[in-house]
Amino acid sequence: MAGYLDFLLDDAELGVFLSAEADLAAMLKVEVALARGCAECGLIPADAAQVIDMTAADFRADVDKLAKDTLRDGIVVAGLVRQLRDHVGEPHGQHVHFGATSQDIIDTALALRLRDIFELFDARLTSLIAVLGELEGRFGANRLTGRTRMQAAIPITAGDRLAVWRASVERAQAALEPIRAANLILSLAGPAGTSDKFGGQIGAVRAAMAGQLGLSVPDYVPHAARDRIALLGGWLSQVTGALGKIGQDVALMAQNEIGEIALSASGGSSAMAHKQNPVLPEVLVTLARFNAVQVSGLHQALVHEQERSGAAWTLEWMILPQMLNATGTALNHAQAMLDAIQRIGEPD
Amino acid sequence: MAGYLDFLLDDAELGVFLSAEADLAAMLKVEVALARGCAECGLIPADAAQVIDMTAADFRADVDKLAKDTLRDGIVVAGLVRQLRDHVGEPHGQHVHFGATSQDIIDTALALRLRDIFELFDARLTSLIAVLGELEGRFGANRLTGRTRMQAAIPITAGDRLAVWRASVERAQAALEPIRAANLILSLAGPAGTSDKFGGQIGAVRAAMAGQLGLSVPDYVPHAARDRIALLGGWLSQVTGALGKIGQDVALMAQNEIGEIALSASGGSSAMAHKQNPVLPEVLVTLARFNAVQVSGLHQALVHEQERSGAAWTLEWMILPQMLNATGTALNHAQAMLDAIQRIGEPD
Amino acid sequence: MAGYLDFLLDDAELGVFLSAEADLAAMLKVEVALARGCAECGLIPADAAQVIDMTAADFRADVDKLAKDTLRDGIVVAGLVRQLRDHVGEPHGQHVHFGATSQDIIDTALALRLRDIFELFDARLTSLIAVLGELEGRFGANRLTGRTRMQAAIPITAGDRLAVWRASVERAQAALEPIRAANLILSLAGPAGTSDKFGGQIGAVRAAMAGQLGLSVPDYVPHAARDRIALLGGWLSQVTGALGKIGQDVALMAQNEIGEIALSASGGSSAMAHKQNPVLPEVLVTLARFNAVQVSGLHQALVHEQERSGAAWTLEWMILPQMLNATGTALNHAQAMLDAIQRIGEPD
Amino acid sequence: MAGYLDFLLDDAELGVFLSAEADLAAMLKVEVALARGCAECGLIPADAAQVIDMTAADFRADVDKLAKDTLRDGIVVAGLVRQLRDHVGEPHGQHVHFGATSQDIIDTALALRLRDIFELFDARLTSLIAVLGELEGRFGANRLTGRTRMQAAIPITAGDRLAVWRASVERAQAALEPIRAANLILSLAGPAGTSDKFGGQIGAVRAAMAGQLGLSVPDYVPHAARDRIALLGGWLSQVTGALGKIGQDVALMAQNEIGEIALSASGGSSAMAHKQNPVLPEVLVTLARFNAVQVSGLHQALVHEQERSGAAWTLEWMILPQMLNATGTALNHAQAMLDAIQRIGEPD
Repeated sequence: MAGYLDFLLDDAELGVFLSAEADLAAMLKVEVALARGCAECGLIPADAAQVIDMTAADFRADVDKLAKDTLRDGIVVAGLVRQLRDHVGEPHGQHVHFGATSQDIIDTALALRLRDIFELFDARLTSLIAVLGELEGRFGANRLTGRTRMQAAIPITAGDRLAVWRASVERAQAALEPIRAANLILSLAGPAGTSDKFGGQIGAVRAAMAGQLGLSVPDYVPHAARDRIALLGGWLSQVTGALGKIGQDVALMAQNEIGEIALSASGGSSAMAHKQNPVLPEVLVTLARFNAVQVSGLHQALVHEQERSGAAWTLEWMILPQMLNATGTALNHAQAMLDAIQRIGEPD
Repeated sequence: MAGYLDFLLDDAELGVFLSAEADLAAMLKVEVALARGCAECGLIPADAAQVIDMTAADFRADVDKLAKDTLRDGIVVAGLVRQLRDHVGEPHGQHVHFGATSQDIIDTALALRLRDIFELFDARLTSLIAVLGELEGRFGANRLTGRTRMQAAIPITAGDRLAVWRASVERAQAALEPIRAANLILSLAGPAGTSDKFGGQIGAVRAAMAGQLGLSVPDYVPHAARDRIALLGGWLSQVTGALGKIGQDVALMAQNEIGEIALSASGGSSAMAHKQNPVLPEVLVTLARFNAVQVSGLHQALVHEQERSGAAWTLEWMILPQMLNATGTALNHAQAMLDAIQRIGEPD
Repeated sequence: MAGYLDFLLDDAELGVFLSAEADLAAMLKVEVALARGCAECGLIPADAAQVIDMTAADFRADVDKLAKDTLRDGIVVAGLVRQLRDHVGEPHGQHVHFGATSQDIIDTALALRLRDIFELFDARLTSLIAVLGELEGRFGANRLTGRTRMQAAIPITAGDRLAVWRASVERAQAALEPIRAANLILSLAGPAGTSDKFGGQIGAVRAAMAGQLGLSVPDYVPHAARDRIALLGGWLSQVTGALGKIGQDVALMAQNEIGEIALSASGGSSAMAHKQNPVLPEVLVTLARFNAVQVSGLHQALVHEQERSGAAWTLEWMILPQMLNATGTALNHAQAMLDAIQRIGEPD
Repeated sequence: MAGYLDFLLDDAELGVFLSAEADLAAMLKVEVALARGCAECGLIPADAAQVIDMTAADFRADVDKLAKDTLRDGIVVAGLVRQLRDHVGEPHGQHVHFGATSQDIIDTALALRLRDIFELFDARLTSLIAVLGELEGRFGANRLTGRTRMQAAIPITAGDRLAVWRASVERAQAALEPIRAANLILSLAGPAGTSDKFGGQIGAVRAAMAGQLGLSVPDYVPHAARDRIALLGGWLSQVTGALGKIGQDVALMAQNEIGEIALSASGGSSAMAHKQNPVLPEVLVTLARFNAVQVSGLHQALVHEQERSGAAWTLEWMILPQMLNATGTALNHAQAMLDAIQRIGEPD
């Protein structure tokens, strides 16, 4: 995204979790947890796990080399493991990545970052609900024209409309729980989902890793089963859809002849000094439509052939981070927009 | 849909619930429940409710007239209520549709039909899970080549792959519950969501109607809050996505040089008598991609402005029935395809 | 589509071309042209072609049987050819469908129907441009508020806005030409695109058939090359997008406090007798968003594997007819809406 | 996009044209051309234009400040013009941006960058067509199994399939011309599309600017008319769809049991040293599906209300650059993949 659009269309606070650095750090964390879990179960030497854990702390990936390897391999993990093994050195380096496949590492690293992201989103939803409640307290009794099919219907109160807005945000927050449970899982199943290198120890290794990482262990092989990602996309679009509906309402209320809302800060025009544009309400509509487009791509990726599909999985990489960013941005903008409301409707 | 595609792309059993007849019948049921609920609460005369209930039983809508009215009004209910009032006759006809708005009737009628549809889908999912279990029993120990990124990886068993298929159908079935809870709700809130005609009786009327209709009463005004529909779309695509993944796998397994699966019935070619085409596996992929496209439309409809939006709501009418039909069709085809499996993988 | 929505969401005039009858009739026409072309080139006996041509005239397909065959075969043509051969009888029946594949017949039959559909759409676009020109003549000098980012900007005239509307319809009409040229083509290439049964005569047979059917002969094998369909989808969405923009503008102009437009006929409410809803403008927005969703599906179908893909092709069947119907419906509604305009803006 | 995915999912060469620097440079070029055009027509003093031109050469935007202004204004131009006016200084600074609106500057700047991008894409398409021709020369006579509905049909040659691939790329290249003509246009119409500040000089100013910038002057007001962008999106997806079809074919041909293609370089696995993954073919499928998703968003943006819509326009900003990047990346990967082909089919 071009630099000058960073504040309009990006969420800097979220960006920390979506960065390459955060991704690599999370992958390292998974590799360390794998080594420790394998050591606990006797699959690799205990001192190997200890050395991997310790040396991983000061490992810095050669990202340019990683990018080249990723072009060749289609995934970053093969190259990352090579670099990490070199960094750990023999005899312990060979024990890095025991029994795992790339997707185990990347999907588990995604889960770790999603945990932080969900917390951030959850807190913002709480804050939105609070400000909507405050607005109901301040303006709820004001008169407003109820409008259906874009025509004046019957009188309502500002509180009637605000309650619809608030309830939609509350439902979005409540809907996060199953999304969280479905996504904060450990992936560990090896190259073809059969955990073949782990033998009878797979359950113990998974339990150990899940404990270290604070994730749960799914009762299915997650590699080719992508419904949790599609449902996450649906939830992200539920959030931006709820906020986009509010933004659309605000943009309609702010029309000059209608003036049902007063906002303290609005955008300027390059040509008309007198004009105040409701920028944030419009961008909320944009972000809702953007996510509504993207959710289709995550559902296309459900057709994930065989044990693991490069084509379908890579499509997720292209779409999910953007949906997360659009959602974070919408949450920020919605907060700023609602904070700027100075009046809704007319006092009796 | 052209008649000769009816069996390939339509679900006749489901079609009964999606028909105009079922829709009108459900709307009548809602109007009757509304009248009875209003009578219970003293909002309309008790004999009016009784007469509305009795006469509705032999009411037959003039569908051609309804279609003309719907073109003018944008919704069918205004015309339907006129016809029903004429049919009931005065002095009771005037009490039809007390306090309600079109959307109350249509959305509640949709909930009634969804209840039947969910039962049908649930039963089919149970049946699919059973046949997948049987296949695991019969062929689970057979050897299969694990494949990732469309290349042979390591040996697995047919049971490994079947377990992934089955678990995805099981998760889809489990995910139906919250969808069911969110969608099987009563809509009753009046022209602008404020239930203004019902006064303090709105809670009692809702409880009475919900009891009669077997629906729950939501704790929010549902008119402009469409997340339950978008999430339903996501669930439908979860189902077709799970089945599309199985279909894609089967189509790949059925390739001539690979022959990892034997199906008892396959399609003929107009030009090549020797050729057997895996029709159902391909159509499962089609239906998955179709629903993955449509889900975007239901999410666009989340931007539902003001108290009720004609534009966004009509978009749901164009898309949701098709997604339901695609899902029903996919469930049928998946069953037929799995029933036709004669072998997966190779015995040891 | 439920019967009472037929006038709101369907185009009856177009429906004739989209019906199963029209489709079967077009396929028969293609089979007859194939027989005659093959006879001209000596590939089948001349009297066989004559008998096929004559007997096809009174052939009536058993559609129920066709539907069953289509479920098994994935395409209708295999069953249709069997029925037609039976109807023609031996010794000539065996010469039906010489050298062709199902896709040759279906895709060419689609081209024949698209020719009629394009003419219908073209005429409607001409009519829309005319009424937009008339509106410019009647109201062009009226004052209107120019609005950007949903805020009043500077004064413009009704003619300024009408010119934008008209030019977008004119561009859509101009853009039909390359779409027409790309789609009105003969498909004849045999089971794997190599025209193997025709030998050196393929060029002559194609020329003969194209001449009879009024289509052009493409310089490529069209089976797996679906860009013409995706581009057609883009054009259909261009049309509905242009009309949806007009509809959105009208809905905004018709808001009570703004009143920049007066329409002679609008929809009634089931609950509020005083209310006039701008139904057609809203539905134009719906149809634009519907086609904007669907176009994605036709582009997904570009990934059409190998010589012919059942999965990708069937997706076109599910989507293209609906996009055509939405476009035809939007053209009708736009005409009715523009015809109903009684005033735009304010006279000086 | 995370750094290690840069080579897999980004096009560095294209990135130069998509960068914020290129965007700002193009906007400056447009402002300078506007000043010069206005001076030629006597709308601003000649020395003002000269000073603007000269001082623009060493203008460096404060991008952080721009980003803040863009958040407030919804567009970058208001802030950019303020900075540029300060940099030019009075008395000439006031003449910067005479009569224009933000959209004039941004859309024209986009056209300038698209010109370079189209040249780049055109050259790559030429190169792809050349390598496909070479492959036909080298392997065209080889035997290949024709496959339809994922089943072996009849024997074809490698040349048969290569010809389908080549023709689809040739059609994509031919289809670029109208896209180029529609998009390489000057936008100059002022705040509400009426060019009100330019009076009778608007034609002359447009001609002067178009001449300087090498663009054409459209015969319509382009602000709210976005079909050229939607059609551009369709073309980008046509390109990636053609390449995705080739990628899908290659991935299927490269399956172990089928081995119809040999590629010199393929990706490694993190867990299976023996395994060679067809990374580029898979990514071509990914990029095709990605663009097929995104094209829907550009079509949603056709519903561009009133004289200029912030919501619809911003959606284009979020989607178009990504589609361009996906297309450039796919062109690069297709070239690399085709260059790596060592054999197709089997020699006789």
